Formats: sequence, C-alpha cells, structure tokens
Amino acid sequence: MPNIETPEPNFAAQVRASFARQGLMTNIGACLTSILPGEVEIEVAWREDLTQQQGFVHGAIIAAIVDTACGYAAFTLMPPDVEVVTVEFKINFIAPAIGDKVMARGRVTKAGKTLTVCAGDAFAVQHGKEKLVATLQATMMTVTHKG
Amino acid sequence: MPNIETPEPNFAAQVRASFARQGLMTNIGACLTSILPGEVEIEVAWREDLTQQQGFVHGAIIAAIVDTACGYAAFTLMPPDVEVVTVEFKINFIAPAIGDKVMARGRVTKAGKTLTVCAGDAFAVQHGKEKLVATLQATMMTVTHKG
Amino acid sequence: MPNIETPEPNFAAQVRASFARQGLMTNIGACLTSILPGEVEIEVAWREDLTQQQGFVHGAIIAAIVDTACGYAAFTLMPPDVEVVTVEFKINFIAPAIGDKVMARGRVTKAGKTLTVCAGDAFAVQHGKEKLVATLQATMMTVTHKG
Amino acid sequence: MPNIETPEPNFAAQVRASFARQGLMTNIGACLTSILPGEVEIEVAWREDLTQQQGFVHGAIIAAIVDTACGYAAFTLMPPDVEVVTVEFKINFIAPAIGDKVMARGRVTKAGKTLTVCAGDAFAVQHGKEKLVATLQATMMTVTHKG
Repeated sequence: MPNIETPEPNFAAQVRASFARQGLMTNIGACLTSILPGEVEIEVAWREDLTQQQGFVHGAIIAAIVDTACGYAAFTLMPPDVEVVTVEFKINFIAPAIGDKVMARGRVTKAGKTLTVCAGDAFAVQHGKEKLVATLQATMMTVTHKG
Repeated sequence: MPNIETPEPNFAAQVRASFARQGLMTNIGACLTSILPGEVEIEVAWREDLTQQQGFVHGAIIAAIVDTACGYAAFTLMPPDVEVVTVEFKINFIAPAIGDKVMARGRVTKAGKTLTVCAGDAFAVQHGKEKLVATLQATMMTVTHKG
Repeated sequence: MPNIETPEPNFAAQVRASFARQGLMTNIGACLTSILPGEVEIEVAWREDLTQQQGFVHGAIIAAIVDTACGYAAFTLMPPDVEVVTVEFKINFIAPAIGDKVMARGRVTKAGKTLTVCAGDAFAVQHGKEKLVATLQATMMTVTHKG
Repeated sequence: MPNIETPEPNFAAQVRASFARQGLMTNIGACLTSILPGEVEIEVAWREDLTQQQGFVHGAIIAAIVDTACGYAAFTLMPPDVEVVTVEFKINFIAPAIGDKVMARGRVTKAGKTLTVCAGDAFAVQHGKEKLVATLQATMMTVTHKG
C-alpha cells in the first residue's frame, strides 16, 4: 500500500495495549502476529470451547478476529489519543474452518478523517497450508477522547 | 408473522440439540430463552472475559448471539434432517452494550427452499430496561445431509 | 417510532428539493409518495428501460429507491444546513419484482449526531397486492456544509 | 487467480448476450470493457441523467455496474444452461465519483456449486487517472433452468 502515513509512531505499542484490554481476546487465546501500518494479523488456535456444532472453529470467532484485525489496521493510521470503534461489518463464510488454527488478516482500503473502510480475510491453517474460510468488509470510526 | 409453516414438529428440541453441540455457546454462557417458529431469542450475561477494551460486552459476542438466533430462527422453519449454515451477515453496532446482559432476537424475513433471509436485533439490558445496541441482516442456507 | 425529534420543521420541503436535484431520480421516474419524520416512501413504475435480463425491474433500481428512501428518512431527522450521504448499504434480493411498480420504504433505526442507521424494504405491486422483493440495511452520515 | 476452470467455453458470448437483454444497462449506457474468466469490467460515462444531487454519478449507478460486473464474473465460471442472480451485496461509498466516467471491476473470490462470493471495486476516471470510489462484496447464486 503506497504512501501510507502513520501519524502515531508508537502505533504497534498502542495496538498491543488496546488489544490487551479486551477480555474476550484473552478468553479465546487470540494472538497479534503482525502489526504493520494499515495491516494487522491475528491468530486463534482451535479449542473445543470455540467450536460450532460440527466441531470446527465457530464463525463468530472467525468474525471476531477478522473484525479486530481490521479495526487495529485502521487504528495504526489514526492520530494519537483516539479510539477506534467498528461501525459495521459484513462477512461471508466460504468454507468450514477445518484445521489447527485460524489466521485473520485485516487491511485498510481507505483511511478517512472520521471513517475508515477496511477489508479482511480469514484462513484455516491445516498441515501448514492456508485455506480461505471467510471474507469481510467493514467500516471503522475514529472516536476522539472527550474531557 | 402470518402463515408460518413448520415442517418439523420437534423444531424446539432440534434447536436445543444443535445449540448444545456448540462449544462456543457453552463457553460464553449463552442461553436459549425463546424458540418460536421463525423467531428465536438468546441471552448472554456480562462477564469480564467477554469484554472489549472499554469493559462492555464485545461486539463479537453480540454478533455471535444475534447471528445464532437468526440461524436457529431459520432452522425452525426447515424440514427434518437438514442443517443450517450462515452464508453471510451484516451487523451495525449502534451503542455500547452497557448493562448486565445482552438479549438477541432473530427472526425470519423470508424462508426459501435453499436460502432464508433473517433479521435480528440485540439489546443491552440494564436495571430491567432494554436498549438497542446492534441490528443484523443475514442469509442462511439449508444444507442437506449426505450419505 | 416514539419521541422522534425533527430539528428542521421544513423537512419535507428539504427532502423534495434535494430529490429534485438528482438527475437519476428523474431519469427513472421515481416519485416521493410519503415523507414523514424518520420514514420516507418512493415508488417507481415498471418501464422496459429499467429491466434486468428477465424483463423485471432491475435490482439496481430497487436498491436505488430503497437506499434513497433510507437516506431521506435519515435526512428528515437532521438539523438544517447539512447534507446526507450514504456511507454503505447491504441489500438482500428476495424475489423477482414482478408487477406494475416497485414501492420502497426507508425508516430510521437509530439517528445519531454523525451516523444514522436505517432499514428499508421494497415491494413489488401487482394487481394492488404488495410482495416483499428486497430488504436493506444502511449507514447514513450527516455532512456539514463548509465555507 | 490460479486454476480457474471455465466449464463454458463461450463464456464471453454468454455474458454479452445476457447483458444485452438488460434494458437498464442500455438505458445508462453501460459497456462491457473486459470479460475474463472470473473477472469482468463495465464502464459508464458521466451523463446528467445519471447524477445525484451534487452532479456526480449516482451511487446507485456505481452499485449497478459493480454488482453487474461481479455477477458476470461469477457467470463466466458457471456451467452452460444456468443463470446467475444476485443473492445480496454490500457496498461502501468511499469518495464522490468526480470524473468523466466510472469503471467497475468485479472478480470471483470463491466459486461454489450453488453460491459464488465476489468482490468488486469502482473507480472514477478523470484526466486518465483512476480513483477508488466504492468497494463491494456480493453473494451470487447459480440458478438452473427448469423444464
């Protein structure tokens, strides 16, 4: 992605700090595996308490990590002292997440002052091979701290 | 909703059996609180390990229970010996889920042979008062067992 | 919808003036048939140059009038001297639009200072009977005039 | 996109024949500018009767050509004697379509037997330069002729 400006030099630390405050991410064992300007990756390993009725990783967990990866991808391009919230997202589930883990990649399609449009994908990883299992399109919002 | 046909008389038992097989629903403490033809409700109580960075119930948990309520709402109108899968959904987050629990209601907009369109809402419940926190539109698919 | 506030008393005139500036609405023969606070209706009559490959009103025309009805529904609740733009929408097509005309109804789900969430439906009308053909969920934005 | 199979050797002719039956595409002056397996491009030139209230090409026209490009991208990978219909799409509008024309590109993300997931983008072209104005994610369905 050319000409990406990152107004906050400590963007990776900011992402890690925000991520650490999310109780759900700890619950599901999600890990931040890459934080670049405008692109973030998050992984979750298979666990029985994350499954849907067929025993694969639940779509809600897949949506959770792709949405979160997109939100933090947007966050990396935001100025200091703001927060990011998800306005909305849309996700297509493409295949069951058969494998040992799910890897989600979120990236910024267009960063704006108020709204940022993102796209993300999720891949099931089995025996080291990635298979696309979901694709997501989202709108993120920059929220300024008050007070 | 007028003239709803439910080809499977045991639809509520079918929903409960499928729900019980979802490890994630057990993990998050989700409860089926109502199962009617074409309309299902699911609740989740606040827990610290279900939160986002501000300490409210995470959007992913909200999406999880609204999507699941919609999926089972569709399932109540399907014939026996099929499964329901979520093709895709789109969710708008409207307000932070401040409160003791989140209640999700999913309903069938149009049931079809292959695809069923659903709509759902989530409400945060605080001091007995409901506040709309998210709204969702989804496409569900009837999947026939093979073999 | 209880407690709707309409900061602009001339909301209906504002909607009509904005609608009249849209060359596309004139092209397709769209008519504003109802303008209430938070709810707007638009109709389009069947014409051969509005069809898809089977001869029914094209999904793009259906999307156009439901999105526009939602946008103006949001606009009725906005303060004076702003414009409304569509951030994004998602539409499900439910049935072919068989009939003499298509009627779209847009309504506000939640009005906010910056963003307004809307929902809309489209109905094909044949022999005076309405049939649901599409359902839409959208995010609208209040844009302040500059200068 | 590797390993794309096109069961219908005459896919481009099939796309052109279906496109020609759409009265709306003729109305708006849309042109098929590229038809490859799994990827289709459509252009529309600016015309006053295609505008929104600020005089730019209307979002509904942008949605129309990106959705159509995605639908025909899916159609190129389908077997003979079927039709393609749009189940649903979601579109984000990113910037006003300032320019002489709008170019839409639709591509297949994952082709399935019943459902195909597609992604598309629209670009405004001004003085020969392209600018991203919208991005779309869609679900297409293969419909078998009966009789």
